[in-house]
Formats: sequence, structure tokens, C-alpha cells
Amino acid sequence: MKNTPKLLIFDVNETLLDLSLMERAMNNAFGNEAAFQIWFHKLLMYSFAETIQETYNDFGAIGKAVLKMVEAHFNVHISEAETKTILNHILNLKPHADVVEALQALKTKGFMLVALTNGSKDALEQQIENAELSAYFNALFSVSAVKVYKPHANTYKYVLDSLNVSVEQAMLVAAHGWDIIGAQQAGLQTAFIEREKKSIYPLGKKPTLSCRSLKELVKQLS
Amino acid sequence: MKNTPKLLIFDVNETLLDLSLMERAMNNAFGNEAAFQIWFHKLLMYSFAETIQETYNDFGAIGKAVLKMVEAHFNVHISEAETKTILNHILNLKPHADVVEALQALKTKGFMLVALTNGSKDALEQQIENAELSAYFNALFSVSAVKVYKPHANTYKYVLDSLNVSVEQAMLVAAHGWDIIGAQQAGLQTAFIEREKKSIYPLGKKPTLSCRSLKELVKQLS
Repeated sequence: MKNTPKLLIFDVNETLLDLSLMERAMNNAFGNEAAFQIWFHKLLMYSFAETIQETYNDFGAIGKAVLKMVEAHFNVHISEAETKTILNHILNLKPHADVVEALQALKTKGFMLVALTNGSKDALEQQIENAELSAYFNALFSVSAVKVYKPHANTYKYVLDSLNVSVEQAMLVAAHGWDIIGAQQAGLQTAFIEREKKSIYPLGKKPTLSCRSLKELVKQLS
Repeated sequence: MKNTPKLLIFDVNETLLDLSLMERAMNNAFGNEAAFQIWFHKLLMYSFAETIQETYNDFGAIGKAVLKMVEAHFNVHISEAETKTILNHILNLKPHADVVEALQALKTKGFMLVALTNGSKDALEQQIENAELSAYFNALFSVSAVKVYKPHANTYKYVLDSLNVSVEQAMLVAAHGWDIIGAQQAGLQTAFIEREKKSIYPLGKKPTLSCRSLKELVKQLS
């Protein structure tokens, strides 16, 4: 790498935290193996749609709203209590197997580590605490402060401005193609983490690094 | 209705044209009943992501690109020839059963009818011709002229400016929640057509009209 970053900005859901617990619970409730995928895609779609039409609702509220749309999609009714149980899983996710060791190694190497999520600040704080990752992060950021969703440039800039770090010194680490292209377009370096089922967006700017896991990110940054 | 529109702007895919032919072909190719839904959601997600990060690629190119991502998602390889066959189905879709009669009735009643799609202008023209709907439309519009995707306000305004029609005189007719909220937010009236599996976005502005079919739209506009 010609320009090693000093700040690593981590996406949270799927990049650090394993959503399979929530996926199983939702698929069970709907009796359909695609329910979670449809829900998660709709959650992102409607978050993006709100940013495009210049409105803003909290990510959690959008998640609950689009679950109603998924009910209509599959013609299945989920009770209010069950809805709450399923959606609350997002606060209690485990980190992927490579996360703790990689964050520890990156921290030891002197990188500044922060998290940036489309989720709310409250949810993010609970997620990181419940996943026992608090010790690794210098700061936690939610797009709720700027009221637009990633991949809007203002979300990445908000983190950089808050920490007084220049765009050249920062790298976004994410398992989502749309997050990678947004950050790359905004001038940050990026590292794509190839989680299961995930791939980069073929028409977007290429990530600076592509890694099979966070362990490989540690290696590539060394 | 307190304010009958004079211009009806129709969304195309799913609202007028039945995508089930394409859905079956794609699901067969992937051997998975959710493949088309995942693909269509990704197509919209990445179109929206491009608009948010202020880039633009043609809808057809995005459709092809995200099909590669769906291949990675399901760990299935689709040949170049089969990809072309599947994606070309979008040019040869049949109208839903209620479309021809409703468009004829609306035209007879004196409404100005146009179509507005996130698809390319070329694709739209072929779709409308192959579906034998050309006779009903005064004009066909693609967002490619403004290089942002619906639900961006500029897409709806582009149609109004082109036809010199005021926002109060226009109604968007669509089966997609995200299209309805965008047009409603931009100041147009809207009619949501409740196609199978479709529902409105619970957090958005309510549509002016909700209709089970285009026949019901004709009735509600009479």
C-alpha cells in the first residue's frame, strides 16, 4: 500500500457482527428461507429511498415498518410480541469468529478504530457492548447525527470531521458493496471483507483492498 | 377527490407489466424460488445507492451487474448466454390483465397518459411496443434524461417540466411504495396499485388513492 491509513472506520452489521441468529429467527417466523434476505434488502432500499427523497426515519423504525411489508409479501402475520423479539436480536449479535483477534491486533499496531453504522446511536452502543467489543473502539458513530444514510458522502465526512482526520488518512472496512462504493467515491480508502454471500458491486470504484477475512486485513495492513 | 389530475404518470415494471415470466426464468436458472426477488431488490438498492453517491449507470447495466452479485449470493454460475436470455425477458413482458381496459377507459375520459421508468429510454420503448400499449401513451419518459433514479424529486419534475404541467395537476400511478412516497414528497398526487405481494411504506406520506387494481383506479377517478 502506498498510503497506510491511520483511521479504520468499521461498518457494523455483517462486517463485525454475525446476523445469522436474527436470520434464523425471522426465517422461522415466516416459514420461509428467504424472509430475512428480503427484509434486509427492503430495510436498506427504504433507508436509501428516504435519503434520496430527503426525509429521515430511524433505522430501527424503518426495520419495523418494512417487516410489515414483508408480512404482506409472504402473506404471513407476525404478532407484535414476536416482531419485538425478532427485531431485538439485532442488539445481541455475536462478532464473527475473526473479529476479536483482528481488532486486538490492529489496536496493538496503533490504528485508530471507530465504528460507523446506519443503525441508531443507542442501538450501536448496545450492540458493541453486548458483543464485548467496547475496549477496541476509540469512538462509535451513527448516521443519525447527519440524518442521511450511507452511502451518502456526508456520513463518512461526519466521522472525519469529528475526529479531525483527513480523507487520505482514513479507510472504511465493510462487507457491503454499496458501503464500499460510497466511501471510495467520497475519497476514502476502502477494504472489502468478503463475508459469506457478499461481493463487490461490479460497476463501482474498486476497493483499495479486498480481504477474505479481517485476519487478512491485518496482514495486508502490516 | 378534491382535485382531479389531468396527467397520469404510470410506473412501468410491475405496475403495468407482469414480471412473472422473468421471475420464473431467473428462479429456474438459480434453482431457488427467491432468486428473482433478491435480484430485483438489489437492482433497486444499487440504483438508489448510485443516486445517493451521485454516480449514474444505466438500469440495464446495473441489472446485469447485480445478477453477478446474486450468483455470488447463491454460489451459482450463470453463463453469459443464459444471462442475456434471462435479462432480455424484461423487454417482452405482457401487461397485467387489467391494464388495456383501464388505459383505454382513462384515455377515453380525456386523461393525458405517460409512462416514467427507472429503465432506459430504449428499453421502455421496446417494452411498451412489445406489450402493445403504444396507442395509449402521449409520451414515454426515462430517468436517464436526468441521471438520478426515482424516488428523486428531479425525475418527477422532469416529466412535469417536459409537458408543462403543474405538480397539482399530476398523479403518479405505481405498485411500489418507494415510488409513491417519492412522488407524494415531491408534491404530486399518487395512486398506489396493490399488486400481489406489494404494499405501501408505512412510514411514508400516504398515497392520495389506494386501489386493488387499475379498474378500481378508473372508478375512483370517475
